Amino acid sequence: MTSPFRIGIAGLGTVGSHAIKILNKNKDLITARAGRPIEIVAVSARHRDADRDVDVSAYDWVDNPRALADRDDIDAVAELMGGSDGPAYDLTNAALSGGKHVITANKALLAHHGLELAALADKQHLGLAYEAAVGGVIPIIKTLQDSFTSNQIKSIYGILNGTCNYILTRMRETGQDFEIILKEAQDKGYAEADPGFDVDGVDTAHKICLLGSLAFGVEPNFDELAQTGIRHITSNDIKLSEDLGYRIKLLGISKNIDGQILQYVEPCLVPADSPIAVIDDVYNAVFVEGDFMETPVLSGHGAGGGPTASAVVSDIINLARGEIRPVFGVPARDLAKPDWALRKKLKGRYYLRLEVEDRPGVIADVSAILRDHNVSIETVLQHGRAPGGTVSVVILTHETPHQDMLDSATLIGRLDVCHVTPKLMRIEDI
Amino acid sequence: MTSPFRIGIAGLGTVGSHAIKILNKNKDLITARAGRPIEIVAVSARHRDADRDVDVSAYDWVDNPRALADRDDIDAVAELMGGSDGPAYDLTNAALSGGKHVITANKALLAHHGLELAALADKQHLGLAYEAAVGGVIPIIKTLQDSFTSNQIKSIYGILNGTCNYILTRMRETGQDFEIILKEAQDKGYAEADPGFDVDGVDTAHKICLLGSLAFGVEPNFDELAQTGIRHITSNDIKLSEDLGYRIKLLGISKNIDGQILQYVEPCLVPADSPIAVIDDVYNAVFVEGDFMETPVLSGHGAGGGPTASAVVSDIINLARGEIRPVFGVPARDLAKPDWALRKKLKGRYYLRLEVEDRPGVIADVSAILRDHNVSIETVLQHGRAPGGTVSVVILTHETPHQDMLDSATLIGRLDVCHVTPKLMRIEDI
Repeated sequence: MTSPFRIGIAGLGTVGSHAIKILNKNKDLITARAGRPIEIVAVSARHRDADRDVDVSAYDWVDNPRALADRDDIDAVAELMGGSDGPAYDLTNAALSGGKHVITANKALLAHHGLELAALADKQHLGLAYEAAVGGVIPIIKTLQDSFTSNQIKSIYGILNGTCNYILTRMRETGQDFEIILKEAQDKGYAEADPGFDVDGVDTAHKICLLGSLAFGVEPNFDELAQTGIRHITSNDIKLSEDLGYRIKLLGISKNIDGQILQYVEPCLVPADSPIAVIDDVYNAVFVEGDFMETPVLSGHGAGGGPTASAVVSDIINLARGEIRPVFGVPARDLAKPDWALRKKLKGRYYLRLEVEDRPGVIADVSAILRDHNVSIETVLQHGRAPGGTVSVVILTHETPHQDMLDSATLIGRLDVCHVTPKLMRIEDI
Repeated sequence: MTSPFRIGIAGLGTVGSHAIKILNKNKDLITARAGRPIEIVAVSARHRDADRDVDVSAYDWVDNPRALADRDDIDAVAELMGGSDGPAYDLTNAALSGGKHVITANKALLAHHGLELAALADKQHLGLAYEAAVGGVIPIIKTLQDSFTSNQIKSIYGILNGTCNYILTRMRETGQDFEIILKEAQDKGYAEADPGFDVDGVDTAHKICLLGSLAFGVEPNFDELAQTGIRHITSNDIKLSEDLGYRIKLLGISKNIDGQILQYVEPCLVPADSPIAVIDDVYNAVFVEGDFMETPVLSGHGAGGGPTASAVVSDIINLARGEIRPVFGVPARDLAKPDWALRKKLKGRYYLRLEVEDRPGVIADVSAILRDHNVSIETVLQHGRAPGGTVSVVILTHETPHQDMLDSATLIGRLDVCHVTPKLMRIEDI
């Protein structure tokens, strides 16, 4: 009989608990697919006596997860604690330094320290597997490492945060505002008590940072990533977008523009009948466009204990088989330093929502500013009438350089008929 | 510098030509991802002087593809000729016997001879890679081998034939009948002059045979696979389905029912708002349901030179890196012999279309037969009125054992008011 592949698990929240459940329930199947048994040797979590729906009494308990890195009876450590620094970083670093493979679901850790950790894994000839870090059960990491390797990727983008997608879906379905639906999402366990990581786009930014690195063979660099979340999206924006044939989705996007990389996270309008528009609720989807392939899509549950732990355990199986993948698709030393495209080089169509006085001449003033910046109007929609009061006016533009659009919006915002800062969003025709 | 990975290519149709284009255009990128250069040494095709849009004069030409297997200067053979037997089989067998990896896009070959060839590859410690055989650019083969490995798969199903999906989509959009749209598909190059392989479900059956083997760890067995194509689908069926909130899709399905495997290919009704219903035109999509994951989806162009050759070249890169995957997920000797579920064990909802005389009492007669077989009616839809003439009546049932439904349909067909054989299709609530 082949020797077992011995693992330690740090973090016993919903993902860690589910990983243990899967390893136990599907033991025979997993042994067959790994070619050897997988044995949980030791576990660690913050509170030994926490209420869990798995029994961990059969495994060694260590209070300090860092201790897993030093044990001789462990081949790999599953880091399922989270956090970009602190214990997760210490454990990952120590485990790799100590000759152990690492499996992690931690996108924050890799977005901030991925390059250094990948170089360490390369040096040690060890695996650092992180399928669970992006898109839950969606196998996008291994697909980029192993399958979409023959193409020059033009762009990779997607809906990468289930919390935001749930909130935007429910806002559309109910007509309610952000704060009310956020509360609903928190009650359902889809949003954290402190939701900023999700709703401000940070989590999506971590993920697109990793996907961009894999797709383009460049060093991951989180600091270059502009991010805008969804707090400012109103039910009015959603309604007006629908009326115009669009839906609002929080997208993470990484594009190759003539050899330069541009990546950003922001809520965008997408055509209501496009494949990305129908990805609703807590689903995630990743779209990849290459020079010989048009936009295959991988979608599924982007989070949750079962799906995420399914990915963790599949990574464990890969490592048990001896499969070690270069973290970002090629050895860390071969990753290029990205040549970042300036955002102002971006062109595109835009959604501009104004709250203006409902009186003659307003549209003329606004149109004049747009004309002076060579912004061509595709559609103007005024929603309702309120003579003497304030109405919403939405303008959709034809393709326009980003900077011209920004400049126009700034000037329009200074008109005295304009009662609040104009709302500007990109239309992504994808 | 690392030694090049040397390949021979047999078959220079659209896939073979595109593979050469990709290898040339993306040479640097592919060398980086493979860790070594990939060198085309020799090629073979039926007609040396055929008009091609790639220049093959730089490669050795061999008239008999079988000769590629005997060369000492080749590490791997790409078999891109097609056909379940004959030259494709001979070459694959000889190449593996002669110590060469094989890359193939040939689902027919693997559906019929996969077990034997997998055992040969195992014995020789060689790779037999076939990502391009199913779903074009969709990376479902490697995903089943490497990513969806931790779950017990409950079912795998999908739209696997672009020709049929195109025809069904266009029939819906235009209201035209099968033969007219088939002609359109042939004119566009989406259907062969002899379309039987596609429209009779054979191609879908080859593919679901391979996916079922991978998903369930069982020997592929094409002979156990029932298949029904789309020739019998009328524009009336499509219209009536739409009116009832469904779309007709040709599905390949492989299910684990209490440890027994049931697999079949047939046109089914799917809810019009389901994720599978929106996969239109030449797109393919594969859905996988596991015990800890609900139905991730992989979709994209299921055929075409660029997408299929992208998958071929990614397989070449894998082999150049030294990655050898067990063909069906585990060594061939560990594949179980499937315990086939009897089709009559299947339950489900059904669509039954009758062409009956439009006179009082007909529905009563039909309903009585259904009642006698414990078939519970969900909806009855009569399309138009034609007193004394023939009208279409569609019945949707609640969940019913398959055999009861077949028996009822047979008896209803014998009623003298029933002018043509009743049309029975499954509703897949997926």
